[in-house]
Amino acid sequence: MSKYSIGVDFGTLSGRAVLVNTATGEELADSTYNYPHAVMDESLPDGTKLGVDWALQHPQDYLDVFSHTIPDILAKSKVEPSDVIGVGIDFTACTVLPVKSDGTPLCFLPEFSKNPNAYVKLWKHHAAQDKANHLNQTASERGETWLPRYGGKISSEWAIPKLWQILDESPEIYTAMDAFVEAADWVVWQLTGKQTRNSCTAGYKAMWSKSEGYPSKEFYKSLDPRLENVVEEKFSGPVTPLGEKAGELTETAAKLTGLNPGTAVAVGNVDAHVTVPAVKIDSAGKMLAIMGTSTCHMLISDKEVKVPGICGVVEDGILPGFFGYEAGQSCVGDHFAWFIDNCLPKSYYDEAEKQGMNIHKFLRSKAEKYKVGESGLLALDWWNGNRSVLVDVDLTGVILGMTLQTKPEEIYRALIEATAFGTRKIIETFRENGVPVEEFYASGGISQKDPMTMQIYADVIGLPIHIAGSTQGPALGSAIFGAVAAGKEKGGYDSVMDAAKAMGKLRDEIYTPIPENVEAYNKLYAEYSILHDYFGRGTNDVMKRLKQIKKSASQK
Amino acid sequence: MSKYSIGVDFGTLSGRAVLVNTATGEELADSTYNYPHAVMDESLPDGTKLGVDWALQHPQDYLDVFSHTIPDILAKSKVEPSDVIGVGIDFTACTVLPVKSDGTPLCFLPEFSKNPNAYVKLWKHHAAQDKANHLNQTASERGETWLPRYGGKISSEWAIPKLWQILDESPEIYTAMDAFVEAADWVVWQLTGKQTRNSCTAGYKAMWSKSEGYPSKEFYKSLDPRLENVVEEKFSGPVTPLGEKAGELTETAAKLTGLNPGTAVAVGNVDAHVTVPAVKIDSAGKMLAIMGTSTCHMLISDKEVKVPGICGVVEDGILPGFFGYEAGQSCVGDHFAWFIDNCLPKSYYDEAEKQGMNIHKFLRSKAEKYKVGESGLLALDWWNGNRSVLVDVDLTGVILGMTLQTKPEEIYRALIEATAFGTRKIIETFRENGVPVEEFYASGGISQKDPMTMQIYADVIGLPIHIAGSTQGPALGSAIFGAVAAGKEKGGYDSVMDAAKAMGKLRDEIYTPIPENVEAYNKLYAEYSILHDYFGRGTNDVMKRLKQIKKSASQK
Repeated sequence: MSKYSIGVDFGTLSGRAVLVNTATGEELADSTYNYPHAVMDESLPDGTKLGVDWALQHPQDYLDVFSHTIPDILAKSKVEPSDVIGVGIDFTACTVLPVKSDGTPLCFLPEFSKNPNAYVKLWKHHAAQDKANHLNQTASERGETWLPRYGGKISSEWAIPKLWQILDESPEIYTAMDAFVEAADWVVWQLTGKQTRNSCTAGYKAMWSKSEGYPSKEFYKSLDPRLENVVEEKFSGPVTPLGEKAGELTETAAKLTGLNPGTAVAVGNVDAHVTVPAVKIDSAGKMLAIMGTSTCHMLISDKEVKVPGICGVVEDGILPGFFGYEAGQSCVGDHFAWFIDNCLPKSYYDEAEKQGMNIHKFLRSKAEKYKVGESGLLALDWWNGNRSVLVDVDLTGVILGMTLQTKPEEIYRALIEATAFGTRKIIETFRENGVPVEEFYASGGISQKDPMTMQIYADVIGLPIHIAGSTQGPALGSAIFGAVAAGKEKGGYDSVMDAAKAMGKLRDEIYTPIPENVEAYNKLYAEYSILHDYFGRGTNDVMKRLKQIKKSASQK
Repeated sequence: MSKYSIGVDFGTLSGRAVLVNTATGEELADSTYNYPHAVMDESLPDGTKLGVDWALQHPQDYLDVFSHTIPDILAKSKVEPSDVIGVGIDFTACTVLPVKSDGTPLCFLPEFSKNPNAYVKLWKHHAAQDKANHLNQTASERGETWLPRYGGKISSEWAIPKLWQILDESPEIYTAMDAFVEAADWVVWQLTGKQTRNSCTAGYKAMWSKSEGYPSKEFYKSLDPRLENVVEEKFSGPVTPLGEKAGELTETAAKLTGLNPGTAVAVGNVDAHVTVPAVKIDSAGKMLAIMGTSTCHMLISDKEVKVPGICGVVEDGILPGFFGYEAGQSCVGDHFAWFIDNCLPKSYYDEAEKQGMNIHKFLRSKAEKYKVGESGLLALDWWNGNRSVLVDVDLTGVILGMTLQTKPEEIYRALIEATAFGTRKIIETFRENGVPVEEFYASGGISQKDPMTMQIYADVIGLPIHIAGSTQGPALGSAIFGAVAAGKEKGGYDSVMDAAKAMGKLRDEIYTPIPENVEAYNKLYAEYSILHDYFGRGTNDVMKRLKQIKKSASQK
């Protein structure tokens, strides 16, 4: 008798549920629900205006995802609720909200419903940059030992800057909240009736570590005296490692979802991190790149090393029993979209239309004809700054080598190559710091749809690239954790590794480096590295000076 | 009773005649004739194939320009031939042909009509690069004193490389020719029946100087023993300074043109150089930029200085009595055309069409809204290498500062600014070497049609820009020299300066630097200079290495 697990992936604009056979990994049905409030970046539903760089969400939308998608996949697959043994979820992060001790979001309370600070602050809420700057400076001056775990810098997207913004702007919200929780943990709380905090978001977004816990009271006090006891006041409760069961479905949650009460629920997880077992990664030295508008790099290792310029290293942060490293490129597919929107001439659209081809495919059909180095172009992939390994939002893009013969497809290809060089720079930085990267896996839209780009990546990094077998990487990953939460006796698994082996999926095709291309790209990468360091490590800070000039010019 | 002078401007694809009132400079009529053979770069008229980088012309086309355009402007203007006192001509250069002692082109002789080396080698014939390389190396090793007059390097476009190619490939042509002449001088010969050599092409293209003459026999012998006596064998005869009369119209030429025999004819000149008096430049320290697909810079001075990276300094080379300096940017309007052809998105064409606007104008209407520095972009204007002051064809273009918000009009504007920075670099190089540049004049298409670009130039170079009053700068300049050849007694002038004052024309409007923009551009120019030297002067030869990689990749 087959058993099933459900994974629910909460994205930026929608939630998606997938129903998976726990023995085979087969995905029987999926369902997507768009958040009615989407991203609130201009005003609250009642019209209350939001500031610049705000990005909020409404927690009711998350509950509606459960009530719409889970009944839908049950109906579509005709699977009996009694055969569903576990549920796992993953979420964008750091996406956080203030709640009461019973889990009620403060924005649900009439007295706070008009206050933007009572709502969910989405990962891309960027209005707490001054708090992050202040925090980084203080941590650096104090020589805080946790700072190097995050490549030396924490982001304005993370929990403490966002919480500190609330404290400053709406102290009444700060006082009224009993906890500041990740949405990942909040939805699990809604399913199980029990609060948990997962080790992934606690580690990557709230500066927690398994061996050292949270930063000290003294540190928080030095930021703001009102924050001295922030950990016990707003982050209380144990941190649960990934792979654990958070609890079981309550009667209320069972009614909401159409599942049976008592169904196992895994602790929350993050979309990128949860994808790792979905591509069968189960041991150290294997890197997963989730390639979309931006790229997240997930790497597991046996040891903890401080690697400069990475986003974070967290014990149990990706797979239980390993140190999980995260790095990232802030702009990948976005480069290509920018190029197509802003630089592709009319004649190309006309020609593509004439040939009845999609414009992306048309452009690739031209770009893929070039030999490595044949365009004479080189680019730095910094259209949206550099996340790893330079951690510098003020860096900007460069293209070099243009002649009057340069064609659009050559620039397009140079942009793709630049992002591949950026990935290689991350891999080499890990290696130089003693963290091996021996295998490379890719998921996300680009990995599924763009063979040219994947071959370029294989040739640039000099490693074969294994491609995710599911287009629903995060949801499949969550279903894997759901099966582990259920346990072997119920038809699931006792370890994430076992579940990954059975339920994870890779495509048969592997992108294998072509030796002559690898050799040619080695030469181009050497040039990339020279420019990377020249512009990125302070020899010529022209990009920062131009940004300064730009700022003063705009203010005139 | 009004008197008139005719200027004939021989361009790359056509010849154009203008009939000008010598007292007022008024242009009464003009006429253009397209060369029937245009540029022969694939085959001769009989089908004989040409090699790579060849570019030939047919001398009969030049005669046909006379017979078509001069009668036409006489008819249009209703001016009597007896009131036409002088004719001046200008030509592209170095455009050269082998002739017999009576002026007959070797290609007119049946025995040579199938040999490409018997035809006119157009300025852009680039098939003698190996000869130029050899010549430069030898001259440099021998410490030839004339080499620094040409910025340290002579071009494959000039006379000796082209002649040497003939000697190597078709020694029978070399032997059969009695002279190797500039087309500028050849057409004057056809009008007057007398051979002259003008000081402009002799100086800029055949390494002649008023004080030192041609390079020595020893030098030529060291190149190739057969060239030892090349000067006396193929370049015999005196060099005549600009502003002199070459002779008078013969009976034959009178029949060809409809003018009277005995009409004065000026010595030949070059299109860029002849334009200087057409914008009223009559004293030292004044620079003229002829701005089109590329830009030529003409500067006259009281003294001869060796300026690194300029194209040449020639006594009497622009105006009699002055040292004439030439510099250049190999790609100006070509940058903008490349951008519009290769980088402008469909949506812009759609929007321009909707607004009923020309695409260039539409783009400018967007680009001109930006304040200086507001785009955050910086470019190096090397899409076609760098002519002055780096003299390096292997340099390539750069754009820096892109973000996901970067708009096409910002890149377009950055390209314009880059060419203005390139012009400023030339001006500053002259100044640093002791050659003053105090006033700036512009002619050519861009100066006439693009006020935004001209204002940017004024702001970047910090000088007011005077704009040519005629759209036919070269032809007007030739008519000025025609009036000088006729002399004051006949209703012309006794000096080019006097003629320039009366017949030269400037627009009333002057582009005046805006102090706050000048200040802002000073900052951007400082950044441009850092990158100019970093990429252009050997700190990082990435562009050359990429070109090498490109070459090997293309050959695979």
